[in-house]
Amino acid sequence: MNALDRLVILFSKLPGIGKKSARRMVYYLLDGDPQYAQLMAEQIGDLHRAITRCGICGSFTEENPCPICADTSRDAIICVVERAQDVPIIEESREFRGRFHVLGGLIAPLEGINPGDLRVGPLLNRVRQEGIREVILALNPTVEGDTTALYVQQVLKGYEVAVTRLASGLPVGGDLEYADRLTLSRSFRGRTAL
Amino acid sequence: MNALDRLVILFSKLPGIGKKSARRMVYYLLDGDPQYAQLMAEQIGDLHRAITRCGICGSFTEENPCPICADTSRDAIICVVERAQDVPIIEESREFRGRFHVLGGLIAPLEGINPGDLRVGPLLNRVRQEGIREVILALNPTVEGDTTALYVQQVLKGYEVAVTRLASGLPVGGDLEYADRLTLSRSFRGRTAL
Repeated sequence: MNALDRLVILFSKLPGIGKKSARRMVYYLLDGDPQYAQLMAEQIGDLHRAITRCGICGSFTEENPCPICADTSRDAIICVVERAQDVPIIEESREFRGRFHVLGGLIAPLEGINPGDLRVGPLLNRVRQEGIREVILALNPTVEGDTTALYVQQVLKGYEVAVTRLASGLPVGGDLEYADRLTLSRSFRGRTAL
Repeated sequence: MNALDRLVILFSKLPGIGKKSARRMVYYLLDGDPQYAQLMAEQIGDLHRAITRCGICGSFTEENPCPICADTSRDAIICVVERAQDVPIIEESREFRGRFHVLGGLIAPLEGINPGDLRVGPLLNRVRQEGIREVILALNPTVEGDTTALYVQQVLKGYEVAVTRLASGLPVGGDLEYADRLTLSRSFRGRTAL
């Protein structure tokens, strides 16, 4: 197997990329400006060095704490998301001016993901220490998202904090990642108390 | 802009990759094993060093001449394709045991691609020197493909060589009901005796 086919196999491991798409991408790199390929190689190589996890919210960042956690003007509201990649999606909607907290997954016993695997403990600490008045659960409207929302709601019961969840707008069974800005905006405004 | 967003922009320049897909890919690299990202960085960085163009047929290869051109057992038939990436597609079909020749484009005057920009001269040399008995034009059934096929056919008129073109018609497994007018028209003109 030559260098071209090896790279096709590597690319086809990326999410949503089949063998034909991977091949198109590699040929594009080969056909194009070698400097573009070089730049991509360098940036991929530097990725894990340049980007770390914020020690407070758990999102990907160049600085620790991340710019959002370092911003003291943010509202005392925490938006809880499943994954780090959900943070910029919500930031871009400009619907929310609070803080974030990445759970790092959703409860899914069949896949071996239990409550103890999620960053719930740090969330409780933050709610107390940061004087949070509301926790918004921005979890996907799936079985796992529902289970996790219920769990977080229950462990927060002893705290002086409102717990809400994103509601109308997100199609059931869909993925937060593919929601358009307006749908996301509606789901923020229509969030319901749990 | 941080390292993550810069890489998203680079990835979204790849063919068929939008901003959301690019973002998913970068997060996949970040979330996953750093060794995978490292391997990809190295292989992309080495791509232009490892892969060159075959001096005979023009396809991408690690050795020059490429394994296909170096294989003396190949039939004295040349399959003419538009791009280097067409070669492995035809090779994998195992329908053809001859040689290849990459034109490097199709005639498209409006895009500034003229006959002089294609590797037609080297094709003529090969037909003469390699004692080729047939040239199969495997060009897309588009206006540009038709124009280019006609041009290559004309410049080969003085040579003792058969010039053929891949049959155009109904795709196998397709439905007559969904065939467009032009495809149907071609399949009639190219009908074969049973």
